[in-house]
Amino acid sequence: MTSKNKNSESGIVESRVSKVIRDISPYSVPHIDCRIKLDGNESPFGLPDDVQSKADRALKEAQVNRYPDPEAEKLIELIAKASEFSKEGILLGNGSDELIGMLITTLANGTGKILCPAPTFSMYKLTGLAMGAEVIEIPLDENFDIDLDNTLKAIEDSDPDIVFLASPNNPTGNMYNNGKIAEIISVAKGVVVVDEAYSDFSGYTFLPLIKECENLIVLRTLSKVGFAGLRIGILFARDNLAAEINKVRYPYNINSLSQAVAEVVLDSNEFVTENIQLITRERDRVYNAMSSVSGITAYPSDANFIFFKAQDADSLFSQLVEKDILIRNFNKPGRLENCMRVTIGTPEENDAFLAALREILSS
Amino acid sequence: MTSKNKNSESGIVESRVSKVIRDISPYSVPHIDCRIKLDGNESPFGLPDDVQSKADRALKEAQVNRYPDPEAEKLIELIAKASEFSKEGILLGNGSDELIGMLITTLANGTGKILCPAPTFSMYKLTGLAMGAEVIEIPLDENFDIDLDNTLKAIEDSDPDIVFLASPNNPTGNMYNNGKIAEIISVAKGVVVVDEAYSDFSGYTFLPLIKECENLIVLRTLSKVGFAGLRIGILFARDNLAAEINKVRYPYNINSLSQAVAEVVLDSNEFVTENIQLITRERDRVYNAMSSVSGITAYPSDANFIFFKAQDADSLFSQLVEKDILIRNFNKPGRLENCMRVTIGTPEENDAFLAALREILSS
Repeated sequence: MTSKNKNSESGIVESRVSKVIRDISPYSVPHIDCRIKLDGNESPFGLPDDVQSKADRALKEAQVNRYPDPEAEKLIELIAKASEFSKEGILLGNGSDELIGMLITTLANGTGKILCPAPTFSMYKLTGLAMGAEVIEIPLDENFDIDLDNTLKAIEDSDPDIVFLASPNNPTGNMYNNGKIAEIISVAKGVVVVDEAYSDFSGYTFLPLIKECENLIVLRTLSKVGFAGLRIGILFARDNLAAEINKVRYPYNINSLSQAVAEVVLDSNEFVTENIQLITRERDRVYNAMSSVSGITAYPSDANFIFFKAQDADSLFSQLVEKDILIRNFNKPGRLENCMRVTIGTPEENDAFLAALREILSS
Repeated sequence: MTSKNKNSESGIVESRVSKVIRDISPYSVPHIDCRIKLDGNESPFGLPDDVQSKADRALKEAQVNRYPDPEAEKLIELIAKASEFSKEGILLGNGSDELIGMLITTLANGTGKILCPAPTFSMYKLTGLAMGAEVIEIPLDENFDIDLDNTLKAIEDSDPDIVFLASPNNPTGNMYNNGKIAEIISVAKGVVVVDEAYSDFSGYTFLPLIKECENLIVLRTLSKVGFAGLRIGILFARDNLAAEINKVRYPYNINSLSQAVAEVVLDSNEFVTENIQLITRERDRVYNAMSSVSGITAYPSDANFIFFKAQDADSLFSQLVEKDILIRNFNKPGRLENCMRVTIGTPEENDAFLAALREILSS
């Protein structure tokens, strides 16, 4: 009732927010508008006219005053059919980000342990730290593949509750050696999450292995193949494990509009397959072209982007922005020094990027 | 590598999922289709034609292949303007459910303590338990108001990190005494969250008090006033506290389509105000009518629903379903024995409910 009962001069943030969260730098996305946007690993392609018409109709029929289907039943049935997976083993998230959070809440909250290679997708570590887990990072080898010896030793020493393996990996673009992934799944006593956000561009999936390995979970997303705006992540697991993770899912976590459009595009998905094929061809073309540009080192990619190293990434980034082209700059001291990532766009966008790159680096 | 390294016969769920999560019954929403849907505290009203046309255009222009604006800047500006609140102090969630989870992650994860009255909205306890917090429940008094003595004593004894006060409360429908809420905010050293999901129907808000009280956070939602399908929850806090909570927000947590439609309806919101006034009048009419029906006890409401007690709630529920009317049945042993909740619908729906109620209870 009186001020002596309250926190002292330290304030509510210092007294109630854990140091680990106060020390976190938020995931930040720089706001730079460029005509050619090759920074977010999005698809450059919108909906074809016939699909857009179907989506428009579905959106018009969505009753925004009513709650969404809490189970997203129709959407899950479409995914189950397309993936030939048990629908009881499928969960949807508001993007994979939410699924990563649900996994950590279920398996590693407060005092749990998470292991992942480094560098990799930043949300495993960020969400793990925010939820109080210990995060163990094992550096990738010189080819950005899993360092199997160190990884197996760390698993034996620390028995992590979750191992996150993004394959193809972001931001490095390569698939890990599949034999190494299989061995980690076989040895780990905790859950191994294979994040296949980019697997549509590699053509390889661990999905069938869930039948044999109860500790394997696979993540997918609609974000990289044309639908980043919908925020639909997909989790595949054994039915009994999915049922536990489902308990920490917020009811109604997939809004009505995203459900409606996702149902339409999964039901008419020929254009998605064609776009993936086009992006994959363009990726190989851009990689070959970049390999012959002096002043950068491009790394082979199994994803929809190319990871490369420049001599002065900050300068290259700015000069590309001046030419109205936005890519992603990872430059910071350590492993990612002068590292950059360019998303594969339309053939015209890729040509513009390659021309700009050549012009900047030859001047 | 060999089976001796793996979990014993107990399996991955038993060995890796905490007992508290294994013991949780998931938030379940029964699937019953009825013509008259009065179970979910939704608005019965769709978009007016002119607003629907604007929404259709906005949806057509949303580029679903691109990620949403991660800061939902335009939407937050509209909310800041309407609420006369600092935009740096506003955060959006995928429904209030996600905001409740973000609050618990930031302030009470793993070993924190949450205090709330009972009965109240179930997600405070469910999310708290899932995230490893201790949940302290203080029974409401006989008028469903806060038991101030017991609450202050529990705050003094356990110093909770978060106190959740839903006012108007769900499922009981009443506002708590505002003086009691103010005293709790004044005494608590942790954060007090006043969940104003239903405050549009009571006309009272604690929002201005945030200026004076650094430990006060207010939650709102678009779900009860016509837009449950969009999943937009709103958090108001001091700028520095909001900045910390924002660190555990998933980037891109509000999808592009919901952002687009929410911008339209907040920009053309006269119909929302009119609908709230109509629902408020209907609520008072329905309450008065229910008060004269023998066999039930209806409680006064400041929300868009009426909480009432029947003699045999299960039987009444089934008989209403037979008449194609769905309400919410809370019947379970204890405080909620034979308790039910009916959402205020259109005048015609309310008449149908009242007629059905009279017919069933007089037979």
